[in-house]
Amino acid sequence: MNVQKINDLFRGDINAINLGVEGFADTLRQLGARATQVDWKPPAGGDVRLIGLFDRLEQGEATGTVDRTAANAEAIKRVLAGKPTLIDIGIAEDVVPGMHKKLILHAGPPVTWEKMAGPLRGAVIGGLIYEGLAATAEEAETLAASGEIQFDPCHHHDSVGPMAGVVTASMPVWIMENATYGNKAYCTLNEGLGKVLRYGANSTEVIDRLKWMAAELAPILRKALHAHGPLDMKNLIAQVLQMGDEGHNRNRAGTSLFIREMAPYLVTLDEDREKLARVFRFMNDNDHFFLNLTMPSAKCTVDATIGIEGSSMIYAMARNGTEFGIRISGLPDQWFVGPASVVDGLYLPGYTADDAALDIGDSVITETSGIGGFAMAAAPAIVKFVGGTPADAMNFTRKMYEITIAENDTYQIPAMDFRGTPTGIDVVKVVETGILPAINTGIAHKDPGVGMVGAGLVKPPENCFQDAFAAYVEKYA
Amino acid sequence: MNVQKINDLFRGDINAINLGVEGFADTLRQLGARATQVDWKPPAGGDVRLIGLFDRLEQGEATGTVDRTAANAEAIKRVLAGKPTLIDIGIAEDVVPGMHKKLILHAGPPVTWEKMAGPLRGAVIGGLIYEGLAATAEEAETLAASGEIQFDPCHHHDSVGPMAGVVTASMPVWIMENATYGNKAYCTLNEGLGKVLRYGANSTEVIDRLKWMAAELAPILRKALHAHGPLDMKNLIAQVLQMGDEGHNRNRAGTSLFIREMAPYLVTLDEDREKLARVFRFMNDNDHFFLNLTMPSAKCTVDATIGIEGSSMIYAMARNGTEFGIRISGLPDQWFVGPASVVDGLYLPGYTADDAALDIGDSVITETSGIGGFAMAAAPAIVKFVGGTPADAMNFTRKMYEITIAENDTYQIPAMDFRGTPTGIDVVKVVETGILPAINTGIAHKDPGVGMVGAGLVKPPENCFQDAFAAYVEKYA
Repeated sequence: MNVQKINDLFRGDINAINLGVEGFADTLRQLGARATQVDWKPPAGGDVRLIGLFDRLEQGEATGTVDRTAANAEAIKRVLAGKPTLIDIGIAEDVVPGMHKKLILHAGPPVTWEKMAGPLRGAVIGGLIYEGLAATAEEAETLAASGEIQFDPCHHHDSVGPMAGVVTASMPVWIMENATYGNKAYCTLNEGLGKVLRYGANSTEVIDRLKWMAAELAPILRKALHAHGPLDMKNLIAQVLQMGDEGHNRNRAGTSLFIREMAPYLVTLDEDREKLARVFRFMNDNDHFFLNLTMPSAKCTVDATIGIEGSSMIYAMARNGTEFGIRISGLPDQWFVGPASVVDGLYLPGYTADDAALDIGDSVITETSGIGGFAMAAAPAIVKFVGGTPADAMNFTRKMYEITIAENDTYQIPAMDFRGTPTGIDVVKVVETGILPAINTGIAHKDPGVGMVGAGLVKPPENCFQDAFAAYVEKYA
Repeated sequence: MNVQKINDLFRGDINAINLGVEGFADTLRQLGARATQVDWKPPAGGDVRLIGLFDRLEQGEATGTVDRTAANAEAIKRVLAGKPTLIDIGIAEDVVPGMHKKLILHAGPPVTWEKMAGPLRGAVIGGLIYEGLAATAEEAETLAASGEIQFDPCHHHDSVGPMAGVVTASMPVWIMENATYGNKAYCTLNEGLGKVLRYGANSTEVIDRLKWMAAELAPILRKALHAHGPLDMKNLIAQVLQMGDEGHNRNRAGTSLFIREMAPYLVTLDEDREKLARVFRFMNDNDHFFLNLTMPSAKCTVDATIGIEGSSMIYAMARNGTEFGIRISGLPDQWFVGPASVVDGLYLPGYTADDAALDIGDSVITETSGIGGFAMAAAPAIVKFVGGTPADAMNFTRKMYEITIAENDTYQIPAMDFRGTPTGIDVVKVVETGILPAINTGIAHKDPGVGMVGAGLVKPPENCFQDAFAAYVEKYA
């Protein structure tokens, strides 16, 4: 640019575009010029350590030390080829690997009783009472703290659980099989909303409901499922995305399709009609019933990618109410954790943000597999439950294409001209762009024993993605 | 504009905006100038007769001869206050006003046997066989032509019927009540897709299905509905619009919600379990089951506006396969008709546009009430059935705001930030703007006895709206 041109420039009205530090734009505006601030961030937020790691990764990829592209292509191939199929219902201690009477599974990465959040403690107390290992909440707390009870993440036992995610030995579980790869995933049956175990409630009403679910609901649904035969969940999930569900916090269509699919088989069972009616009423009264089917569907789909050398794809995200953790395919045994976040949400009447526990639950496995928050554009009506506007819902989905490996070939969003949902999160892309996964979630009361207080949107902690990225570079580049 | 300015204008680059005749823009473009053609039409297409009528109307409104605004405000108030409620199932000759053994109701405006289109003839033949009035198609044709059988529009008997819309004396019908105004509407139960009476099929398979519907399906659903109590259709329709249905050619969510709502009552009926299973299977196999519930819901809603002095709101649109007809509130007893249109659609395998009958059916009552094609923005996935793109679906809805009186306060479109659906068509606005109602529809085979061949989008004939407008001005201004 020569001097003449510079002079021309300042003779005219100044209309600047500013990238980066916003102060420059402010100064121009104060001087009466126009300035447009562009929402741009340097790669990895300009963090020197991370930029060094990116350089190393680039070198490693250039010299052929690591072929991340090929490894992630293999990972996403398996995700897209996965065929989650509902094959049975069983009792946890009979079917969940390693399950036993004194083991309690919970959501998220590992956590000790001492560090457990209120809703998880509440659910553990309920679980011990449900199993007959304690008669009162006090007895249960003493037992939980005694060291006699083993606590393990659901994820360590091929399982997932919404919110507190507590699974105990005698609870019935859905058995989901990935028909392509043969691996299985397990999840309890959904209890409904409000005062329920997964939100940390543990009153007699909660325990009685769980007992009815084990004694009546699960056996009846099991017989109907046997009569029906394996249920193709991939097909069902594809359909519900065309019916305003996103499979995490909106499951009204999924619950409806499940009921109508099972109804002809339920009605012909040799069971008392009032018992059958209770099963129908229970499902009809709970639009989240289908959530506990999308979760193990997602789990068995992404689990087929565990341990692909060189893959930076995230195969698990999960929160225990204290910490948020992720796991990546190429470093399969590690958890990378950060502090659980505050949820930005809508509250049930009588509750406020002061009552809220931090982010909790394995249900973010839906986002990990390319539905849930990643498919919010398919479910604009969800904003009445989790907050925001339909435009926000569209934008969440749009942004997720920047951190994912592929567009789903089966799960599609009609309003985006049937574009496939953003699927397969690459931790490298997350760190590079600074764009965090979009997650929607229920909100539990912070104290044990209360239950649900709302639902909302949450941002996971950035550091766990950065740590996973650093460990990935350390191992592979 | 002074000469200096004109000279300035032609010295610079010309960048013109052209309204009206496109030839002017073409000439500019040929001379190397830029020209943008604006899609603008003069009011009423510049038709001198119609412009004269608009002048008369304007004078009439100015002098207070007619208060169209107030009359239409009353009409739309009644539409929005309407509460369609499913109260019972009955046999047509017991409940439909004026129904008798030798009367056949059909879709659309009045039509004689001689002028009936193929699918309507096919359905009439089926109806006569179903009633036992003829043993064969030949006998039925002879009887139909004999003058012994009376033909009447469904609309003359508080009824609506999809496609051919044939209702005969012993068919079961849904009984819908507008709980606010007490008026009722009737509609047969939906038979499914493919080879069905309403598409003009009349084989043994079709007649046997109709007999089963009367003998088993309807009585069982009736008992379940009695156990359940009246069903609030307004609430259900509001929900399905949040689940990707538009209530005319996409009814997957509606059918699902109806099944889950009825299931607890069906299962406790003292009926053979195999019979109950057949009812569930029949509904589960037919995503259009809910259409025959949205139609009488729409009918009883808009019927509360019949005969409001000075109202130019359309309270019925309907086609018999030969003609398309409309009726307006302020001229309640008249039909204004034009030739039935060709449907622009997608065809089932083995069929092409050459097989298609012209536009037919009363199902456009959904559009008349503010759902169906008017709510296509809520149902982007419908384009897989009727053709077009999700963007087209959005545009159909957007355009309809220009010819309607209000935005619905209950039926909302999540993807449009929960904007109410365009409701209450003002025939004056249709003629003024030249924008015709957006309608989606099934396509029947042109020959009697075949059945469904596809589904698509259709434009009604413009002249019936112009004739209705002219008659309105004639009467009121």
